[in-house]
Amino acid sequence: MKPESVALHHLGAAAALDPELLCIFGTGDLGRSLGQRLLQSGYKVVYGSRRPHSCGPVPQGAQVQHMATLLCVITLHLELIVLVDLSNNLKKDMYPEANAVYLQRLVPGAEVVKGLNTLSAWALQNGLLAGKQVFLCGNSAKAKHAVAEMATKLGLTVLDRGSLSAARELEDFPLQLFPQWRLPLCVALGLTAFFYFYLLIRDVLYAYFEDGKDISFRIMVSLANKVFPIVSLIMLSLCYLPGVIAAFIQLYRGTKYSRFPDWLDRWMLCRKQIGLIALGFALLHAIYTFIIPIRYAVRHKLISRMKNNKTTPFNFDNTEAWATDSFYVLGILGFFLYVLLGLTSLPSVGGSLSWREFNFVQSKLGHLTLTICTAHGYIYGWNKFLRPSTYKWYTPPGYMLCLVVPSIVLVLKMLLLLPCVDNTLTRIRQGWERTRLREEEGEIKATNL
Amino acid sequence: MKPESVALHHLGAAAALDPELLCIFGTGDLGRSLGQRLLQSGYKVVYGSRRPHSCGPVPQGAQVQHMATLLCVITLHLELIVLVDLSNNLKKDMYPEANAVYLQRLVPGAEVVKGLNTLSAWALQNGLLAGKQVFLCGNSAKAKHAVAEMATKLGLTVLDRGSLSAARELEDFPLQLFPQWRLPLCVALGLTAFFYFYLLIRDVLYAYFEDGKDISFRIMVSLANKVFPIVSLIMLSLCYLPGVIAAFIQLYRGTKYSRFPDWLDRWMLCRKQIGLIALGFALLHAIYTFIIPIRYAVRHKLISRMKNNKTTPFNFDNTEAWATDSFYVLGILGFFLYVLLGLTSLPSVGGSLSWREFNFVQSKLGHLTLTICTAHGYIYGWNKFLRPSTYKWYTPPGYMLCLVVPSIVLVLKMLLLLPCVDNTLTRIRQGWERTRLREEEGEIKATNL
Amino acid sequence: MKPESVALHHLGAAAALDPELLCIFGTGDLGRSLGQRLLQSGYKVVYGSRRPHSCGPVPQGAQVQHMATLLCVITLHLELIVLVDLSNNLKKDMYPEANAVYLQRLVPGAEVVKGLNTLSAWALQNGLLAGKQVFLCGNSAKAKHAVAEMATKLGLTVLDRGSLSAARELEDFPLQLFPQWRLPLCVALGLTAFFYFYLLIRDVLYAYFEDGKDISFRIMVSLANKVFPIVSLIMLSLCYLPGVIAAFIQLYRGTKYSRFPDWLDRWMLCRKQIGLIALGFALLHAIYTFIIPIRYAVRHKLISRMKNNKTTPFNFDNTEAWATDSFYVLGILGFFLYVLLGLTSLPSVGGSLSWREFNFVQSKLGHLTLTICTAHGYIYGWNKFLRPSTYKWYTPPGYMLCLVVPSIVLVLKMLLLLPCVDNTLTRIRQGWERTRLREEEGEIKATNL
Repeated sequence: MKPESVALHHLGAAAALDPELLCIFGTGDLGRSLGQRLLQSGYKVVYGSRRPHSCGPVPQGAQVQHMATLLCVITLHLELIVLVDLSNNLKKDMYPEANAVYLQRLVPGAEVVKGLNTLSAWALQNGLLAGKQVFLCGNSAKAKHAVAEMATKLGLTVLDRGSLSAARELEDFPLQLFPQWRLPLCVALGLTAFFYFYLLIRDVLYAYFEDGKDISFRIMVSLANKVFPIVSLIMLSLCYLPGVIAAFIQLYRGTKYSRFPDWLDRWMLCRKQIGLIALGFALLHAIYTFIIPIRYAVRHKLISRMKNNKTTPFNFDNTEAWATDSFYVLGILGFFLYVLLGLTSLPSVGGSLSWREFNFVQSKLGHLTLTICTAHGYIYGWNKFLRPSTYKWYTPPGYMLCLVVPSIVLVLKMLLLLPCVDNTLTRIRQGWERTRLREEEGEIKATNL
Repeated sequence: MKPESVALHHLGAAAALDPELLCIFGTGDLGRSLGQRLLQSGYKVVYGSRRPHSCGPVPQGAQVQHMATLLCVITLHLELIVLVDLSNNLKKDMYPEANAVYLQRLVPGAEVVKGLNTLSAWALQNGLLAGKQVFLCGNSAKAKHAVAEMATKLGLTVLDRGSLSAARELEDFPLQLFPQWRLPLCVALGLTAFFYFYLLIRDVLYAYFEDGKDISFRIMVSLANKVFPIVSLIMLSLCYLPGVIAAFIQLYRGTKYSRFPDWLDRWMLCRKQIGLIALGFALLHAIYTFIIPIRYAVRHKLISRMKNNKTTPFNFDNTEAWATDSFYVLGILGFFLYVLLGLTSLPSVGGSLSWREFNFVQSKLGHLTLTICTAHGYIYGWNKFLRPSTYKWYTPPGYMLCLVVPSIVLVLKMLLLLPCVDNTLTRIRQGWERTRLREEEGEIKATNL
Repeated sequence: MKPESVALHHLGAAAALDPELLCIFGTGDLGRSLGQRLLQSGYKVVYGSRRPHSCGPVPQGAQVQHMATLLCVITLHLELIVLVDLSNNLKKDMYPEANAVYLQRLVPGAEVVKGLNTLSAWALQNGLLAGKQVFLCGNSAKAKHAVAEMATKLGLTVLDRGSLSAARELEDFPLQLFPQWRLPLCVALGLTAFFYFYLLIRDVLYAYFEDGKDISFRIMVSLANKVFPIVSLIMLSLCYLPGVIAAFIQLYRGTKYSRFPDWLDRWMLCRKQIGLIALGFALLHAIYTFIIPIRYAVRHKLISRMKNNKTTPFNFDNTEAWATDSFYVLGILGFFLYVLLGLTSLPSVGGSLSWREFNFVQSKLGHLTLTICTAHGYIYGWNKFLRPSTYKWYTPPGYMLCLVVPSIVLVLKMLLLLPCVDNTLTRIRQGWERTRLREEEGEIKATNL
C-alpha cells in the first residue's frame, strides 16, 4: 500500500498529436495494472523503480528506470510536470498532513493532483472500470484537466472535488466501509435482537413454564420467521416516515425554504439503505416460509394429528380458507412490489428513469407496498386481537407491536392526501410561502424569466 | 417546479485555468442541490434570489445576490453569456412556446441552452448521477460544448439533441411516465382479466351450478396461479412473434431494404418490456406454487383424504411420478432461463455484452425458454387433451388456449430454421436482394471498400 | 454484415462552432440506426449508397448520394478526412489482413480509425448506449480524438487500443462468445455429469439390483437436487482456492514481485464467472427444494406412511428437529449471502463500491458464505458418516466427496489467518521482501516521495 504516484508530462497542444509519456513510480500491483491499462489506451509508460533489475515483470512495452535517474530526467523540465498522487493510508490520520500536500511541498515546482486512489489493482486488471467514479483534486485546473482526460480514456467517470485541500478527504475515501449502511444496519440488528428475545420469552419460555413443554427447537426457524417479517415491516415504514414528517414540518412552517433538522436530513439520506435492508429481511422471510412444509416438526405434527384424533371429523371452514389465502396473497404481492422497488434502486436501472418515473416508483409504489404489507400483518391476527389467550403474560404478540409504526405512517399519509392539505403542500413545494403576500408573488412571476 | 436556470460565463481559454463562475437563478431544491454538486466540482457559484436574505440556506461557499443586481452584472458582458434553462412544466403544452425559446426571446444576446431538466434534486443530493443520461439542445455549439463539459464533470452522460427547436421535446421528457410500458402493460392486464373471468366461469361457477359445491375460496390463489402462467407464456411468445413475422416479411419481399409496417416496428421496440412483464408473471407463478403446500385448503384435503378412504389402498403410479416430476423440472428450468434473460436486460449487464453475445442470449436462449415453457404447458395436460370431462360446458381449459400462440411461434421458427429458408434469410440480411442481378452484386463487392 | 464505414471531416477548430458533416457508406441497419443517433446528436449526415434511389428509407434530415459522387467530393479535400471503419467479419481470419488496414491501403491519404464495430444496430435503435464500452485504434491520435468525441456524444465509453495494428484484434471482438465463461462452464458441466452418473449408480441402480425396487423416477428431481448443491459448493470453493494458493506462493517466495504461474493467473481471472455459475446452481437447488412437498412421490410417501404403520406411535425426536432445522437455516443463510455476492458483481453495483468495500464483500463475505455452505453440507450427513449402510457398494455418498475441496480451502484459509502467518503476508503485500535488508528498505521509504 506504499504511496504510488504517476508523473504526467503535459505537452500542451502536442499532447493531441502523439501519445503522452507517463512515468509510474513504484511497480506494485496497482502500478503494474495501471500501466497496463494506460499502455492499452495508447500511452507511453516508464516505470520508476528502486531496483529496476529485480522489480518483477512490468507490462509489455513499458520501460523500467531507476527512480533517481527518472527523477533527474523529469526535474530538467519540471515546469511542465504534473504529479498524480494515488497514495492511500492504512488508517485514518496516519500522517499529520495529506500525502498529496506533503508531495507538493517536496516538489514545489510540480503541479500535484490527488486522485484515482479509489482504484484497485483488482478492478484495473479485470477491466471493471467502465462508469466507475474516481475523484480528483488539485490547485491547477489545467493539471486536473490533463489527468481527467487520462482517466476518461480509461473509461472512468471523473468527479472534481476542488483544490488540493480536499486531498485528506480523498485519502480517507478508500478507508470507508459502507458509511451510509452503518446506522440502518444497527437499527435493523437492534430490532432483530429485541424481537428475538421478546418472542423467545413469550413463546418458548412461556410454553416451558406454563405448559412444561420444551419447544426450544422453534428458535431456529419458527421464531426467526416471526422476527424477520416484523423487522422488515418496521424498516419499510421507517423508510417512509421521514418523508411524512418532512411534509408536516413544511406545512407547519408554511415554507420549503427553511432547513430540516439535521437528524431528519441524515435520516432521509439513508432511506435507500433502510429500504434495501427491509427487502433483505423480506427475502429471508419468504424463503423461511417456503421451506415450512419440509420441516421435520411440521411433518410430524401433520402425521401425529392424523393418528391421534382419527375419529373426530375435520370440517372444512370456508372463512378460514378465505382468510389464510388472502393472507398469503397479500404477502406475495407485497414481496413482489418489494422486489420491484429493489430493482429500481439499482444504479443502472434508476439512472435510466426520468425523475418523475423514479418518484412514481419510489413514492407511489412504495406506499402501496407498505399498505399491502401492513394489511398482510393485520389479516395474520384478524381473529386474535380480541382473544385473551393471545396476551400471554399480559404481553401483546410481536405482530401487534410491529403494526404500530406502519399504521401511524399510513394514517399520517392519508391526512396528507386530503385535498385541502394536499393543495397547500403542493403550493408550498412550488415555492409559495404563507408569510409572503400573494400579489408580490404575482409580480415576481412576471419578472421570473 | 418554477423555472430555474443557470447562467454560465464562458471564459474561453481562461476557463481551463481557473474554475468558471456560475450563477444559479432560484434557490429551490434543484438550485440548491445543483449548486452543491457544482461547488464540489470546483466551480464558483452565485445564487440569484428574489429575497437574498430570506431565501433559506445555500450550500457552503456559494454567495447569494439579488436577482436584479445579478442580472445587471451579467448584462454588462452579455456577449459572453450562456444561459442554461433547466425549467420544466407541470403539464404538457402549458405554455404556447417552449420555456427555453421564451427565455431566448427575453435575452436575445445570450446563448440559450436547454437541458439537464431531467435531473431531480433527489438524484443530485444522493449522488445518483454517474452514468445518468441528460439531454441538451441549443443553437450555439460552443455554448452546448461548455454546458456538456460542466455536465460531464458532474459525472453525467450528455446527449446532444440538436438545435433549440428540440426544447419543447426536452421539456416534455420529465412528464413522461413509462411511455414504452403502456402498451405491454395494457395487453398483460387485458389477458389477465379475460382469463380470470374465463376460469372463474369454468371452475368456480361450473362447480357451483353442476355439483352445487362452493369453492369460491379458490379465487384467491388457485385461480390466480392458473392465470399467471397462462399470461406469462402468452406474453413471452408475443415477445418473439414479431421477430418471426419480420423474417417472413423479408423472405416475401426478398430484401431487407424496405421498411416494416409501423405496427410491427412499434411492436418490436417494446419487446424488452413485454419480456420483463412475462418474467414478472412467471415470478408470481413460482411464488404461488411454492406456498401451495402450506395452504389451509390443501392441508385439509390431504388430511380428510386420509380419514375418508382409510381402507382403499393407494398404489404408487410410476407414470404419474415421471409426468409430474418432468412437469416441475421443465417449469424450474424455464423459470431459471427466464431469470437469465431478465438479468441480461439490465442496462449495466447488457451494456457489457458484445452484440453477438447479446444476440445469442436474447435469441437462442429466448427461444429455448419459450420451447421449455411451452413443453411445461403441454405436459400439464398430457393426459387430459382427449378426456371429455376436460371440456366443461364445451369450453377448453385455459392452458389449452394459452398454448396456441406459443405453438404457432415455435412452428414458424422451425420453418425459418430449415436450411433452404435459413440460407436465403441469411443472404437477405447480408444485403442480397432477389431483384438484383448476381454479377452486379459481384462487381459492387469489389468496389465496396 | 457488409463492411460499413463513416467518413468524418475533421474541421479543426471550426468543429466546435457548427455540427460536423458525417458521411456514412452503406445504408444497412447499422448505418441507418447510427445515422439516426448522430443526427439526434446534432451532426449533419450524408449517406453514400450504391443505389441512392432504392436504398430504402434513411433517417429524417439525412441526405443520400451515390457512393461514387460522395467519394469524389471527399477526395477533393482528402487531407482533411478521417475514415472510421466499423466493418466486421463473419468468421475469424476471413481475410488475409484486417479490413481497416486494407481500407488504409486503398485510401492512403485518409486517416483510418478502426472502432465502434462492437455496436449493434439493435443497441443503437433502443438507446442502450449509455456507458457501453467501445474500442478505437488508429495511427493518428488527432483522428482518434475526433472519433472519440463523436462516440462520447452518443453516450459511449471509449477505450483507445493503440495503433491500427490492433485492428485485427478489434475485428475479432464481435466474434467472441463469452470467452471468459468457456472454462468455468466446462468445469461445471463436467462436475455435473460426473456426479449425476455417480449418484445414478449409487441410488437408482443400487436400489434396483440390491432391493429390486424401481425408483428411476428419482432421476428427474431427487437426483438433480443432490447434484446441484454438490456442484455449487465445489464451484464456490474453486472460486476461493486460487486466492489461497497465491497467498502460499507469496509466502514461500517471500516476495510479491514475482509473477504467478500462468494457470493460476488464468484461474484468478475467471473467479467471477466461477462464482456466478455456483450461484446459478445454488438457485436451482433452492427452487428444487421448495417444490419438494408438492411432488407426487413425496405426497404418496406421506399418505401411504399413515396407512401402513397406523398403529406404531410416532414419537417426536428433539435432536432430529434441531438437526434438520439448523440444516435448513444454514442453507438459507448461505443462499442469502450467495445472492448478496451475486448482486455486488453486477457492473453497476460493483462500480459504486470503493475497493475496500468490494474487497470486504468479495473476500470476507465470500469466505463466510463458503463456511456456512460447507457447514450446511456437514450437518446434512452429521449422523451418517459412521453408519456402514451409508457406503453402498463401498462408495462414499456424494455430499462427502463434495465436502473435500471446501474443507481444504477453509483449513488453508485458517492457516493464513494465524497471526504469525498473517503478519508476514501483510508485510509481503506491502512490498517487503525476505531477501532485502530492512535498513535499505528504511532509507528507501525516506526517499520514497
